[in-house]
Amino acid sequence: MTRLVTRLVATLMAVAASLPAAQAADQPVAIAIHGGAGTISRSQMTAEREKAYLAALQDAVEAGHRILESGGSSLDAVTEAVRLLEDSPLFNAGKGAVFTHDGRNELDAAIMDGATLNAGAVAGLHHVRNPIQLARAVMEKSAHVFMVGDGAEEFALEQGIRLVPRDYFYTEERWQRLQNARERERAALPQTDKFGTVGAVALDRAGNLAAATSTGGLTNKRYGRIGDVPVIGAGTYANNAACAISATGDGEYFIRSVVAYDIAARMMYADAKLEQAATEVIGTKLVDMGGGGGVIGVDRYGNVAMVMNTPGMYRASIDANGQRVVRIFAD
Amino acid sequence: MTRLVTRLVATLMAVAASLPAAQAADQPVAIAIHGGAGTISRSQMTAEREKAYLAALQDAVEAGHRILESGGSSLDAVTEAVRLLEDSPLFNAGKGAVFTHDGRNELDAAIMDGATLNAGAVAGLHHVRNPIQLARAVMEKSAHVFMVGDGAEEFALEQGIRLVPRDYFYTEERWQRLQNARERERAALPQTDKFGTVGAVALDRAGNLAAATSTGGLTNKRYGRIGDVPVIGAGTYANNAACAISATGDGEYFIRSVVAYDIAARMMYADAKLEQAATEVIGTKLVDMGGGGGVIGVDRYGNVAMVMNTPGMYRASIDANGQRVVRIFAD
Repeated sequence: MTRLVTRLVATLMAVAASLPAAQAADQPVAIAIHGGAGTISRSQMTAEREKAYLAALQDAVEAGHRILESGGSSLDAVTEAVRLLEDSPLFNAGKGAVFTHDGRNELDAAIMDGATLNAGAVAGLHHVRNPIQLARAVMEKSAHVFMVGDGAEEFALEQGIRLVPRDYFYTEERWQRLQNARERERAALPQTDKFGTVGAVALDRAGNLAAATSTGGLTNKRYGRIGDVPVIGAGTYANNAACAISATGDGEYFIRSVVAYDIAARMMYADAKLEQAATEVIGTKLVDMGGGGGVIGVDRYGNVAMVMNTPGMYRASIDANGQRVVRIFAD
Repeated sequence: MTRLVTRLVATLMAVAASLPAAQAADQPVAIAIHGGAGTISRSQMTAEREKAYLAALQDAVEAGHRILESGGSSLDAVTEAVRLLEDSPLFNAGKGAVFTHDGRNELDAAIMDGATLNAGAVAGLHHVRNPIQLARAVMEKSAHVFMVGDGAEEFALEQGIRLVPRDYFYTEERWQRLQNARERERAALPQTDKFGTVGAVALDRAGNLAAATSTGGLTNKRYGRIGDVPVIGAGTYANNAACAISATGDGEYFIRSVVAYDIAARMMYADAKLEQAATEVIGTKLVDMGGGGGVIGVDRYGNVAMVMNTPGMYRASIDANGQRVVRIFAD
């Protein structure tokens, strides 16, 4: 009897050793997403509208998490989560992109692989349905990291990435915002409601981090302005040695502060934890400069940080312990 | 007699106190410039050609230094040094820009003010004679940091920045390089001679740092590719708390490594000195990734670093002690 038990135990141990998946199941997975930070006012948020935002965030974070749970890569998880947010008209990216001063939509996106430090970024797109897919193709299928405008769309065509006519991006709400912005401009009033970006960060079972961000930019923007999203190190950064970060906010301040890489650098060189580093950069450094916005981040242990200095940030996360958060307001 | 001396001393002290310039003369000034790093082979470098490069580097570094010596700002010094390098046909920026695959010239530039962390960057220009002047106008005259393509040129027109017809940028040598690159491409041979950028960093009497970089990009490039130059934190960065950096090399690697900000971050968070931080990033981190190139840097004490992992980098400097260096090869 004892010998039988001993053999059974030995057999079970051998089986367990031959199953890397079983071992891998102990490795944590985690994901966080955002749909933009800014002055999200409770008074303008109807119950119905709030419900729609929360549902869209939940769908995207769960879709990314399912990929991670089934052993998929963090790159696949962030790509899929951002693709879903791009396809939603609720967020300023892809389908819901805001209009430029010229009445067009100009889209930017970036993705980064924390395992290899490979990255892809695109900007000034007018016809790419899912900019995050093009950013990923730039990373995986080209010798370059950063492509803009017509050239980037030429590459998209060569890669079989889906282009759509300009009117795909038309939404009545965003068009009205442009009209309002033009009126405020004529009246020399300050612009509001300017943020809007979507993003995702994830840790997969292999311990790899990834970050992805996509945006329609600023309502009423001119001059081929590019924000922080496609600037690797500013709006998007991932490095297995530290964290994956996706940012949303006043792009100009995020570029000047090299926000995403600054958070990683504080972790690598000053031994800061993710939450602490993100809070120092968003809550102190950016506030001192006058820049508004937020970041989501995940570290290699599956810790999640979602930090903002604005009244709200559309966000959701599932951390290494399976804890789920879906929120809009800061408080 | 004693009273007379006392009054004389008091008068002299009052005069001295009213002369900030006299006090400021104790503050060190320093400048470094580069004209690109890469495989600069001694065998292809004639004595005449070498003399022309050294003279152009010397002219630019002395012009910047004169501005600093006379109390001018580091921003003015780096703008002027880079403008001179842009106007020289010897370097891949402005007049000497290389040709894209389509036979055009596509110019990028960036500038950053270490005192305010203000920055300006432009990319994808076809008609701006001095891209560094447009980058500076973006920094000083717009609400944005980063503009590309037609929009950036529209802003240039509004700001009275000089535009030139495309053929201004034509040089026989660069055109031949495009033909050679196309032939190598047809023969599926690896591309060579791909680096080329100009830049300057400076410390002024007020203790302010500034960095500026300008480039014509890669010979035979496609797809609206943008390198590290206009990516703040990658090819260009300045912060009075650390250093001013201008980079040149494999742009994709410099973006992925956030080279310029990484050097600053190692100084701010890991107490590294400029030379040490630059050597770690260029000599170790980039080499491990497979990226070639170099950086020039200056810190707030007027120390200068010019570090490369390539056989050469066109470079010149005048440090806080007035020591002058004008060199091409690494050894």
